[in-house]
Amino acid sequence: MSFTKLDELGRKLEALEHAQSMLSVDEAVQMPSGGGEKRAEAMSMLAGMHHEMASAPYIAEWIADARREPRSETQKTAINEFERSYINLTCLSSDFVRRLVSARVRSEQLWRQLRPSGNWKDFLPAFEGIVNLAREEAQLRAEVLKLAPYDALIEQFDPGSRAADITPIFTELKTFLKTFIPEALAAQDERRARHPAKPFNAPFPIEKQKALGEAMMKAIGFDFTHGRLDVSHHPFCGGVPSDVRMTTRYTTSEFLSSLMGILHETGHGLYEQGLPKEWGHWPVGRARGMAAHESQSLFVEKQLARNPAFWEWAMPVVREHLGDAAIAGWTLDDVLAHVLRIGRGLIRVDADEATYPLHVILRYEIEQQLIAGNLGPRDVPEIWDAKMREYLQLSTIDNPRDGPMQDVHWPSGAFGYFPSYTLGAMMAAQQWAAVERENPNVNDDIRKGNFAGVNDWRRKNIWSKASTLSTPELMRAATGETLQARHFTAHLRKRYLG
Amino acid sequence: MSFTKLDELGRKLEALEHAQSMLSVDEAVQMPSGGGEKRAEAMSMLAGMHHEMASAPYIAEWIADARREPRSETQKTAINEFERSYINLTCLSSDFVRRLVSARVRSEQLWRQLRPSGNWKDFLPAFEGIVNLAREEAQLRAEVLKLAPYDALIEQFDPGSRAADITPIFTELKTFLKTFIPEALAAQDERRARHPAKPFNAPFPIEKQKALGEAMMKAIGFDFTHGRLDVSHHPFCGGVPSDVRMTTRYTTSEFLSSLMGILHETGHGLYEQGLPKEWGHWPVGRARGMAAHESQSLFVEKQLARNPAFWEWAMPVVREHLGDAAIAGWTLDDVLAHVLRIGRGLIRVDADEATYPLHVILRYEIEQQLIAGNLGPRDVPEIWDAKMREYLQLSTIDNPRDGPMQDVHWPSGAFGYFPSYTLGAMMAAQQWAAVERENPNVNDDIRKGNFAGVNDWRRKNIWSKASTLSTPELMRAATGETLQARHFTAHLRKRYLG
Repeated sequence: MSFTKLDELGRKLEALEHAQSMLSVDEAVQMPSGGGEKRAEAMSMLAGMHHEMASAPYIAEWIADARREPRSETQKTAINEFERSYINLTCLSSDFVRRLVSARVRSEQLWRQLRPSGNWKDFLPAFEGIVNLAREEAQLRAEVLKLAPYDALIEQFDPGSRAADITPIFTELKTFLKTFIPEALAAQDERRARHPAKPFNAPFPIEKQKALGEAMMKAIGFDFTHGRLDVSHHPFCGGVPSDVRMTTRYTTSEFLSSLMGILHETGHGLYEQGLPKEWGHWPVGRARGMAAHESQSLFVEKQLARNPAFWEWAMPVVREHLGDAAIAGWTLDDVLAHVLRIGRGLIRVDADEATYPLHVILRYEIEQQLIAGNLGPRDVPEIWDAKMREYLQLSTIDNPRDGPMQDVHWPSGAFGYFPSYTLGAMMAAQQWAAVERENPNVNDDIRKGNFAGVNDWRRKNIWSKASTLSTPELMRAATGETLQARHFTAHLRKRYLG
Repeated sequence: MSFTKLDELGRKLEALEHAQSMLSVDEAVQMPSGGGEKRAEAMSMLAGMHHEMASAPYIAEWIADARREPRSETQKTAINEFERSYINLTCLSSDFVRRLVSARVRSEQLWRQLRPSGNWKDFLPAFEGIVNLAREEAQLRAEVLKLAPYDALIEQFDPGSRAADITPIFTELKTFLKTFIPEALAAQDERRARHPAKPFNAPFPIEKQKALGEAMMKAIGFDFTHGRLDVSHHPFCGGVPSDVRMTTRYTTSEFLSSLMGILHETGHGLYEQGLPKEWGHWPVGRARGMAAHESQSLFVEKQLARNPAFWEWAMPVVREHLGDAAIAGWTLDDVLAHVLRIGRGLIRVDADEATYPLHVILRYEIEQQLIAGNLGPRDVPEIWDAKMREYLQLSTIDNPRDGPMQDVHWPSGAFGYFPSYTLGAMMAAQQWAAVERENPNVNDDIRKGNFAGVNDWRRKNIWSKASTLSTPELMRAATGETLQARHFTAHLRKRYLG
């Protein structure tokens, strides 16, 4: 039976992915520096084996044959996703993939070297090469996938999302934020004038912060028999669904940045732990994509953990683990002053939930023009500066380091990825609105540290669906409507002007 | 070129072995319990891929073709070892290997279940099956390798070692130990009567013990840019030569058992770190086998770290890390009373360097008869008891748990492995004798914590040779003579009666 062959292939690929994933975790968490060279060699060999195995020509026949065999609905859906992943994997020639990979590696290395000094001029030639290859990739994928070129790139990160659907939502959001941000900042200034932010009673020992983080992970539903929390330079959520490896980093001068990071990664971890176990070796058993994944991490971080109701439960938990002196004399408002602080800045990864979307929309607008060929790579700093001045009243024209050189995505050839962040934020707000419709008293649960209800909703509507639906279909099935900006704008208005 | 094909194959196999090795380390050190099921699945798939890749029929042709190509001496040696490992891998049919693996897994599981209660009767049927399969395996290997059946099993662990060479050495050693052990015990009793052993000033905090262990590892030559020390239930030395992962376990009631364990594993680690890097993806680049590996761990543990000269350097290091109070008032003799304690016991893994060989020789004698068919599995408890009474004046007839059921080796089908332990101990003593011939003042170096000289000798004579020589050839090249019992017996006499 051809389906049996696909099933066996899936188990082999899963084993290689398991190895690749765990070796990456080990590299970030445990590996001594001298192990890096051989590790890179092993990773590259494993990736080669995986690609060879997953792109073998006979798989196309297996898929076609499996379609003709009598199958259950689940198996039909599994075959569809086998096919989708096979087509996306094989629509570029091996020769083109080699050129792409080698150009990306060189450009990313050059970027790491030139970014600290903001040397845009010397980076430009490599960037031009990367943009040319990305245009070619988009064209090649577009022909096979029968999509517009930029959509064919988005498809790699968020299956089913299309620029024609995203653009009106982003435009609505942008218009909203242009007036909202000044109002929210004024309201914040007013609150601060009345009630200045209290400083942290540092130091906060790392062991205690870790215990606090783990206690909150557990309360929110993270299963420590199927995962753990470690330390790495860049926090991430990795591993495999049966063994989710999360990391954070600690500073002893305050405890909130690590804690909020842990809660964000916990959102990713819950999604992975909640995927259907029996499909773990099929493409359809994976998480749906970048926007869906980000919706789960942002749901925990923004909808739950920056919600004032959450902190009514969380403040005693903080005191229990860090000691009474840690936030001695703090009221709910004192915590919220830190947790809900907003401000305009140059750097996307440091941005708060109100300004973050403008960083994303700026990149979305620029990369669309780059891929379409309406904009040349050399003109990026100018348009970046113009948009930053328009959206956030900040200039980057003399500071490419904190302008178009700040992110690794473009230097590494990842075009079509940026929208996922803000799509994820809007999806999270829309999911929360759906939860609230079903249970208008959900904040009372949160206030008691009871997350079972929100988790049940997400398990039923998001986690258990894995990759059976496209990103837009997943949202419609979960919330009863296509993605809307209004749930996210209402969330911001309520939280910062409410 | 066929050599190039072998070279490329070597890189692929090395990547899979890298993954398998690191996943094993992660399983023992980091993995949460719930990750075990998927991990086992992944490991079994990777092992299957490795076996399929390493045993492909066309490899025989590549080897034959490579022999006809013009090659360097190094490449010729590499081809020989490619062939040796290919033949040993392929001389059993896939069908037989499947029967073997499944019987071993079942028997080992049954042993784990029945060992605590010493239920030999219920274990016997599985053990009979395992012995029958081992006899069959020995026969099949013997035919291909043109060796005696038991030698064909030893060959899997110590290439080149033969029972005809081992038996006279073991016989000499056994004869020596029968008179030596009572004398050494009497001398120990006399020392203790004059000078009772001081108790430990517990507790010893784990963090301090770890720092002490790491400081000693570093002093002895372990490269922490290419390795690390962690904690696991059963201490081991794993990982890959570029990234050696060692583990230990701690008790706070004393510090010597963990420290001596760390020093033992450091010996394994130095061997791995000292292998020639450029051959890492060829079979010839691996460590030579079990006896050679054990010779390196025992060299560090017995020749160096139980040497009185070592403790002249080490006592201040212990005080530096554990505090002056840790061994307050202790003299060199007080440490040695712990480090050189000997005694008769039932359990091999708890035995000291004087009694350990008798545990091994007993197993060597019994397993030879089992494989030859001169002894039936059901008669093992009786002969075990008879030999234990003869060698160590202890009976196990009513205690199979601490008799023939104590080790995992036989239940898991590993016959021919046991001799390695004592061959390694004798090799270590013979290597030390060679070092002393070259540098009669080597103990003065040890007294100063200077291990560069012994490491240089071992790098030149053992580590850098990797698998270019058989085990006996390696010893002859390193020490100028074949393996002799007299270096080991002289070592014991000097240390315990000197």
